[in-house]
Amino acid sequence: MNDRPQSRPGRRGRPGYDLESVLRVAVKLFNERGYDGTSMEDLARKLGITKSAIYHHVPSKDELLRLAVNRALDGLFELAAKLETVEGRAVDRLEFLVRGSVAVLVDRLPFVTLLLRVRGNTKVERAALARRREFDRIVADLVAEAEKEGDIRPDVDPAVTARLVFGMVNSLIEWYRPGRGDTDLADAVAKIAFDGIRVHDHGR
Amino acid sequence: MNDRPQSRPGRRGRPGYDLESVLRVAVKLFNERGYDGTSMEDLARKLGITKSAIYHHVPSKDELLRLAVNRALDGLFELAAKLETVEGRAVDRLEFLVRGSVAVLVDRLPFVTLLLRVRGNTKVERAALARRREFDRIVADLVAEAEKEGDIRPDVDPAVTARLVFGMVNSLIEWYRPGRGDTDLADAVAKIAFDGIRVHDHGR
Repeated sequence: MNDRPQSRPGRRGRPGYDLESVLRVAVKLFNERGYDGTSMEDLARKLGITKSAIYHHVPSKDELLRLAVNRALDGLFELAAKLETVEGRAVDRLEFLVRGSVAVLVDRLPFVTLLLRVRGNTKVERAALARRREFDRIVADLVAEAEKEGDIRPDVDPAVTARLVFGMVNSLIEWYRPGRGDTDLADAVAKIAFDGIRVHDHGR
Repeated sequence: MNDRPQSRPGRRGRPGYDLESVLRVAVKLFNERGYDGTSMEDLARKLGITKSAIYHHVPSKDELLRLAVNRALDGLFELAAKLETVEGRAVDRLEFLVRGSVAVLVDRLPFVTLLLRVRGNTKVERAALARRREFDRIVADLVAEAEKEGDIRPDVDPAVTARLVFGMVNSLIEWYRPGRGDTDLADAVAKIAFDGIRVHDHGR
């Protein structure tokens, strides 16, 4: 709760902001109040600088959103690009993708949070949704491949399996807060997604 | 996309609305545009009736939200109340709760969707969050009990397990649309949550 009340005049010309810090504060505000509910005026007030000082860094609110969601999406696609380096079977590449996605989410939490709330109301949002769908397709294809190889259960539709596993991954934004051990978290997600929460009798 | 454009005058006095249908249209709008982004004016326009006709049914927008989120929460608590009728071990009651939650979500999708987006900005929202936490505690206690009984994996923190499983359940709001077989969906979630997506060699 470090919002400056509206009644207190903003400190103007506070030095030290670059595009990166403007972006971080913008994303925080977008996540708190919604993208539509946040004006450049709100952002200027929060930063304690003038609106024109913001426009020095970035041409529009829309562009801040584009930069923010692409920060999340670039993380996911950089991960996907490494898939071909993973030896073994499709199920191993899928586990790599699940663990890596948790790491991206943990590393870029505010950006991923914003991405996952995008609903497609603007051109920038629709472009983000299109990239998300592209990533989802990579996941779904991998699940289907792993199922064909006999490593993933065949009694659930592969598209549903893909959505449920990544639904679990994405649900982290609702409660994960930095500070917790990331490796533990990726481990927990991978264990539950791949082997379930039930104890099996065979000492797995 | 059956929004009536702002420029076209609303049809006034359209008959046939009761509180239930006003509530359903309100929830649809809240989900599309956000609760804060929807005015009673918007709702009146969508319904094709006057604002005072809405106030005949309900005293405020806040009350519409309260009714809507409680529709979701009541479903979950009615389910939880049935837990004591489930024979067997804690893990069986947990599976009952997971399957039942999917059924509530499917049955009350717009209401659950709205509930899961509540951020706690108003008294009504904070009351809803408090009830959600109460339900989450029931889940977490059940997971802890099932772990003590040796049926749930002990290598993940029970609170994390509870959150991940219900994160998977709740993620359904992002893509599930009515028409699909509900039983299949509850089955898919229960299979993956309890036994994982990996095929085990022992013919499970």
